[in-house]
Amino acid sequence: MSLPIFFYPEPASVNELVQLPEETSKHIVQVLRMDAGEHLQLADGKGNQHLVIIAEPHKKKCIVKVLSTTTVPAPARKISIAISLLKNASRFEWFMEKATEIGVSAIIPLICDRTEKQHFKKERFENILVSAMMQSQQGWLPVLHQPLQYEQLFRMEDTILAKQKFIAHCEENRKESLRSAVDFHQSSQLILIGPEGDFTPLEIKLALDHHFTPVTLGDTRLRAETAGVVAATLLCIH
Amino acid sequence: MSLPIFFYPEPASVNELVQLPEETSKHIVQVLRMDAGEHLQLADGKGNQHLVIIAEPHKKKCIVKVLSTTTVPAPARKISIAISLLKNASRFEWFMEKATEIGVSAIIPLICDRTEKQHFKKERFENILVSAMMQSQQGWLPVLHQPLQYEQLFRMEDTILAKQKFIAHCEENRKESLRSAVDFHQSSQLILIGPEGDFTPLEIKLALDHHFTPVTLGDTRLRAETAGVVAATLLCIH
Repeated sequence: MSLPIFFYPEPASVNELVQLPEETSKHIVQVLRMDAGEHLQLADGKGNQHLVIIAEPHKKKCIVKVLSTTTVPAPARKISIAISLLKNASRFEWFMEKATEIGVSAIIPLICDRTEKQHFKKERFENILVSAMMQSQQGWLPVLHQPLQYEQLFRMEDTILAKQKFIAHCEENRKESLRSAVDFHQSSQLILIGPEGDFTPLEIKLALDHHFTPVTLGDTRLRAETAGVVAATLLCIH
Repeated sequence: MSLPIFFYPEPASVNELVQLPEETSKHIVQVLRMDAGEHLQLADGKGNQHLVIIAEPHKKKCIVKVLSTTTVPAPARKISIAISLLKNASRFEWFMEKATEIGVSAIIPLICDRTEKQHFKKERFENILVSAMMQSQQGWLPVLHQPLQYEQLFRMEDTILAKQKFIAHCEENRKESLRSAVDFHQSSQLILIGPEGDFTPLEIKLALDHHFTPVTLGDTRLRAETAGVVAATLLCIH
């Protein structure tokens, strides 16, 4: 079924009448020129997809009626990428788009010792995640956390609960390859990716003290956002 | 050693005096303000790295003397990515940059049935590959082929010689996962990535007739450039 589909994060029940936001209404009525009686879909980013019928084709307050809902379960494995904010915002945005396409469950922006800029625009970044989720036809929107100071990461519930925890760094230490370290039978993985100048030895030590496994992402020196996408690939794609 | 390093593709022997291009000379003399007697490095993209000393710090025609050369062998495994040109040139450029960082040996732009634009700028694209190679501290520049019509690909020597050949597509057919299909003991792999609208059934058939293995790159629908980076990761990074 390739009906037009729009992001609508609010809960919606069958037979309920829903008034869509202005942006979405405009797209449906003015751009697609859809009319009363026509069908479209709404996705809430939490696995639910509603088949709806247009009741009132208002260009700012389009009203639809929910006919049915299908639900896809959350991905069996939950992959979280904690990655330093980057000096170049578009590189960080590129990472978020790609990580979402690949299927990560959570993105945790970090503020590390060598993080150069704390460039973070919550709404803009959320829109990038939504577009990437819709583009790749997935049902679940990755959670985008507020930026955290590096040390705070170790007190987060998600960190404590992750079944496998990895830190990727470029220091000359014993490291396993992430590819062989990941266990697809474990239900959750978390990996830490540092800023352009890498993690400091103290930051690496803190992760090791919290039982993180130091890993390598191959033989070449990757940019931070590339490391993020490579890690997402090696953790999500089997 | 973190001396400044510059791309210089011409052959150069020990004790030879080399005149550097204008762009490079300007950077050395005006931007870095280096002087006679100082050292820097030149990389030729074919595994050679020369340690040189500045003889004449001319801002357009800087002259250096080659002191010594170290050579790194070509990567043991040769990974080639044949990928459709994309409508959005900057997405294709992102792909090339990331594929180079990850370590591919060759990029073959394809013109497929559903390729929307044949946007290809040889010099600009080569510069992207050079920058990415230098950034990731590698010795070997990926070969960037001229764009090929899809059918011509099967007559290329590189295609015929590749030990493992894959085609990634989204059609509903039996496919192996690339992750499990790749054999790291084989010395060369080639993968085909289609345009935004995927390969046509005829194009897929042609590849299968030439003994390409159809593969999947995971469960989600990836953009073409994302598929390229995911494939590069799964083929290069062990």
